Amino acid sequence: MTRKSSMSISFALRNLVLRRSITTMATEVNKTAHAFDKPRLEALLNRRFFYAPAFEIYGGVAGLYDYGPPGSTLQANIISEWRKHFIIEENMLELDTTIMTPAPVFETSGHVARFADWMVKDTKTGDVLRADHLVKNVLEARLAGDKEARGEAATPAVDDKKKKKKAAKTQAVKLADEVVAEYETILAQLDNYSGADIGELCRTHNLRNPDTDNEVGEPQLFNLMFASSIGPTGQHPGFLRPETAQGHFLNFSRLLEFNNGRVPFASAQIGRSFRNEISPRAGLLRVREFTMAEIEHFVDPDDKKHERFNEIRDVKLTLLDRHIQEAGKNTTTEITVGEAVDQGIIANETLGYFVARIYQFLVKIGINPQRLRFRQHMANEMAHYATDCWDAEIQNSTGWTECVGCADRAAYDLTVHSNKTGHQLVVRQALQTPIITEKEVPEWNKKALGKTFKQDAAIIQKVVESMDQESLLNLKGQLAQGKGVIASPEGKEFELNPEILTIEHKTIKQSIREFTPNVIEPSFGLGRILYTLLEHSFWSREQDVERGVLSLPPVVAPTKVLIVPLSAREEFAPLVKEVYAALRKAGVFSRVDDSNTSIGKRYARNDELGTPYGITLDFASVQNRTMTLRERDTMQQRIGSIDEVLAVVIELVNGTMTWDEACHRLPEYDGVQAVDS
Amino acid sequence: MTRKSSMSISFALRNLVLRRSITTMATEVNKTAHAFDKPRLEALLNRRFFYAPAFEIYGGVAGLYDYGPPGSTLQANIISEWRKHFIIEENMLELDTTIMTPAPVFETSGHVARFADWMVKDTKTGDVLRADHLVKNVLEARLAGDKEARGEAATPAVDDKKKKKKAAKTQAVKLADEVVAEYETILAQLDNYSGADIGELCRTHNLRNPDTDNEVGEPQLFNLMFASSIGPTGQHPGFLRPETAQGHFLNFSRLLEFNNGRVPFASAQIGRSFRNEISPRAGLLRVREFTMAEIEHFVDPDDKKHERFNEIRDVKLTLLDRHIQEAGKNTTTEITVGEAVDQGIIANETLGYFVARIYQFLVKIGINPQRLRFRQHMANEMAHYATDCWDAEIQNSTGWTECVGCADRAAYDLTVHSNKTGHQLVVRQALQTPIITEKEVPEWNKKALGKTFKQDAAIIQKVVESMDQESLLNLKGQLAQGKGVIASPEGKEFELNPEILTIEHKTIKQSIREFTPNVIEPSFGLGRILYTLLEHSFWSREQDVERGVLSLPPVVAPTKVLIVPLSAREEFAPLVKEVYAALRKAGVFSRVDDSNTSIGKRYARNDELGTPYGITLDFASVQNRTMTLRERDTMQQRIGSIDEVLAVVIELVNGTMTWDEACHRLPEYDGVQAVDS
Repeated sequence: MTRKSSMSISFALRNLVLRRSITTMATEVNKTAHAFDKPRLEALLNRRFFYAPAFEIYGGVAGLYDYGPPGSTLQANIISEWRKHFIIEENMLELDTTIMTPAPVFETSGHVARFADWMVKDTKTGDVLRADHLVKNVLEARLAGDKEARGEAATPAVDDKKKKKKAAKTQAVKLADEVVAEYETILAQLDNYSGADIGELCRTHNLRNPDTDNEVGEPQLFNLMFASSIGPTGQHPGFLRPETAQGHFLNFSRLLEFNNGRVPFASAQIGRSFRNEISPRAGLLRVREFTMAEIEHFVDPDDKKHERFNEIRDVKLTLLDRHIQEAGKNTTTEITVGEAVDQGIIANETLGYFVARIYQFLVKIGINPQRLRFRQHMANEMAHYATDCWDAEIQNSTGWTECVGCADRAAYDLTVHSNKTGHQLVVRQALQTPIITEKEVPEWNKKALGKTFKQDAAIIQKVVESMDQESLLNLKGQLAQGKGVIASPEGKEFELNPEILTIEHKTIKQSIREFTPNVIEPSFGLGRILYTLLEHSFWSREQDVERGVLSLPPVVAPTKVLIVPLSAREEFAPLVKEVYAALRKAGVFSRVDDSNTSIGKRYARNDELGTPYGITLDFASVQNRTMTLRERDTMQQRIGSIDEVLAVVIELVNGTMTWDEACHRLPEYDGVQAVDS
Repeated sequence: MTRKSSMSISFALRNLVLRRSITTMATEVNKTAHAFDKPRLEALLNRRFFYAPAFEIYGGVAGLYDYGPPGSTLQANIISEWRKHFIIEENMLELDTTIMTPAPVFETSGHVARFADWMVKDTKTGDVLRADHLVKNVLEARLAGDKEARGEAATPAVDDKKKKKKAAKTQAVKLADEVVAEYETILAQLDNYSGADIGELCRTHNLRNPDTDNEVGEPQLFNLMFASSIGPTGQHPGFLRPETAQGHFLNFSRLLEFNNGRVPFASAQIGRSFRNEISPRAGLLRVREFTMAEIEHFVDPDDKKHERFNEIRDVKLTLLDRHIQEAGKNTTTEITVGEAVDQGIIANETLGYFVARIYQFLVKIGINPQRLRFRQHMANEMAHYATDCWDAEIQNSTGWTECVGCADRAAYDLTVHSNKTGHQLVVRQALQTPIITEKEVPEWNKKALGKTFKQDAAIIQKVVESMDQESLLNLKGQLAQGKGVIASPEGKEFELNPEILTIEHKTIKQSIREFTPNVIEPSFGLGRILYTLLEHSFWSREQDVERGVLSLPPVVAPTKVLIVPLSAREEFAPLVKEVYAALRKAGVFSRVDDSNTSIGKRYARNDELGTPYGITLDFASVQNRTMTLRERDTMQQRIGSIDEVLAVVIELVNGTMTWDEACHRLPEYDGVQAVDS
């Protein structure tokens, strides 16, 4: 159902998505054969070098990971699709700004003061823990122990066995019902607590370091930015950016000019950011260095309508709004974007438009829409710059994880940088109907003023020019009588006459409107999306739990087609070359595997790498110019002439043909069993 | 001629390059109309936001630049072409490793001790200058002053007026002939000098800070890595990587396994690196943060042949070898790669192969081959890890600039990391013919040894097992007589008997060869390539020096086709949408410009942005479904049906058709003058 709603995507993408969703559905049948098995997925990802701890031979560093060949290519494909879906589709202005940032920028933006997490220290070992994670781990462990003591099953869909090991140790201790309720409320509101609140919680509920069972100290703020110093003198402190956003804001005037002075427009940037996390332990879900993709959409604060809103109005979303959470619950609502904006749940059309486009992007690359929700930030939880924020959260073995944030930063950033630097970061818009105002305006005879009042002239001018309309009218009346008296802030009086000052009634026409645009910011954590996508894509063959498969959609699969000659013998070489060249010419990335092992093993290896299609070249290929085509998820094999199979596989990869349609074009290959076992 | 040699590129690319070179030649005629004008290019790049100083509204930071929309897209296109030319063409293994690196890695690699430049301090102001740049600036200024005094012209092809302003002030002072010769020798060998040498030079030749005319102090080493600290405790120092290479080396074992244990193979990575330059002043040519593309090709040290060498054997290169430079000269040689390797000028086939492939890549994206040379590093100049190195240097307004390095790092990196961590970073290769060796081997009765010698047993074993064959034979003889005496390093003697130790003659068959592969490293500085490409592409129209053009090849041009409706009126909207959608479907990136200005002005703006083709939609398009096609360099306009023009422009952009061929397909448009002025 939610999948169907993605059909309301813009006309250009509609057919493609429809066809792709059919393909996926056709093969979904056998993917649930075995429950999700996290250790097996992790072993696969490690064995196939999707990613690995960085500096592994040096013992590794928490929160730093390297992507190997399949992981890098998967990431590059996600980025490429992101570029098409957002930058090209919406004609955004791409940027590439620096990571190293002088300190004054983040002092102005508020990051130096506020981009921080609460940490607590183990009072005996000095180990440092993130305060909110400590609360979460300990309370969840106690709740799990309570369930165990009550003989209840663990929460489904989450790999609890694994989780318990990582978090605090569970002891089967029954809790009073009101304690269970209290813990659940604390957990639902956790993101809303201040450091002092958490300190209080630790004392009240005796929360200790789960690793040592020692008490922890009072929560302290730890700034998450990596610090460095620019230049040889050591006098210019700098930080590694924790987000790419400031690079957009500082270039606002140039971007606006590039867009011929008009809003709305959006800038976009894909790049590395850094956060010195306190104690990252969650694999790719919490890292110290990561690739982001960020959009800053600059919009008139008085008009947050979006001209393409109708295209996504009917996209149905799962929402978890602020009020529900503040009531200590987590009940979600299914609702269309149109309804959510109409009802004021989502603040405006532009924010709603991006929430829907984020949804479409995630589903397109293979995220399961049933495990995707949008959660609104609670008041205290929001970043210091945001006025409203919705996170795309994706469910995975650790729970619901924020993978995309979509915030309305209002005019915060442009205003603070403008105030700090004196550079006007504003839009100047010609008014169609000029604004006419009538008012009293002081007119000076500067020469006479200077001559009469010498060094006091400036003060006098300032006093008169800061008068309100009523005072000016009053002064005008006095002057009409020959003289007017004003007083400086210090109480010194001055007598003015009509030779020096007259007050005139004027009609003023304002034909330019000047305003600071608001910013809607969709911000994507690509590593988190990549990891949850891998979880959603992973399953094992029914007949054999050891045979893992990653059902990545062709659009993001690292390799689209595997070319498998029966052996590395020379007679196959010309055909391998021909097929490889034809695919490359069509822009389809393939790999040849002529390694010295059975065809079945080579296919099994590529199922683990997520390669959707395989082509076998054997003696029949040499004699009759035929080849077989294998589909990863069903393991079905079809046969046809080399040219026909090439035509079909290119359409399959481009999403213009479904596997069912391919099966109509190509007859079944009767050697399936022999090849795939 | 050099251009023609690029035809020896692999079969798949041959036609494309040939056709492209024809296109370029056809339009090269009018590009030399005006001499290169650097301030005008810089104004254009700034106005069109190719790039700009980062944090400009905060006053900027030397050596940090942001890329705006055209610059980002140009960079993305260069990267995309690099990925095709290297990663896909050669089936390299892509990596994406972290920038933040714990200190021990760079301690092992030698960067903490040696990745540094010599700096000098102004003795009065404390300003910091890079020592070799100081020498270069002052000596070049004196040589220029000498030329002026002799009434000679400045060196051609270099924008000297500009250069003088930036470097030391020139005074017209004639120098003695032998002083001129000495200065020229110093400049040719400058990269070869140590810090002490430069200090000596400053004293001998009275070299002072050109900004203040003050003396400078003794050269001191300044490490170029940005330092930071990982985690909340401050106990884990880290550096931002100054190159991506270490990320490849540390993952060597995983990469080797991914490649089924075989060498040669190459890994490749595109990513950000950082160097805390002492006083960067040369725009994009010397920056503190930059995007690199690096390849590490792992190869058998005993076999550096390359299987595709024949494909590039005839590529002709301009070389400047080590011996010429060490003789204080800079005379280049034109030679094919094949000859250079045969004559031992380039050390081996693999190094030669990559030098040629680098050449082909640079020419393909638009670097002028006449302004491209390969310079070999001199002995003292080489990085601490390299055994041979050739830089691709591209000539530009500042002289010859290193844009790609191609080094043979030998086994340096893998060896040091292996020694430090104890992880074997080696290849194990089954030997086709096992190596048979015969030798004396000690055989212990461990029980008897332990019982007799207790805590000395280990020392005894160690002593015997480190004996050479001769000593073992000697001991064997003693034992044959009933007892053998050995001594520990401290001189303590032990008496052994045949019950404890026998020495046996054995035949040992070694069927596995274990070796540390060597590394050939092509390393690209993308910002330098991008900037020199912009210089090589820039020219002004003959009729009007104000009308700048960037003749970027379609393959890298930020926008391929500009769609220009006569006006923003609604009647053109359906056609604009149709043409835009058709181009996007064909993978051709176009932009619509319906801004409220003349068609001529819109084309002029896009000439500055390097957009190679333009399509005009007017009333005739609405009535007859025709449209015109404009070529950027010649400003020629042709006309045809919408479908035909679309077919032609797609072929032009893909490089499968030349503009001459297009002119045969489409008749001339007779409204050229009206539209383009």
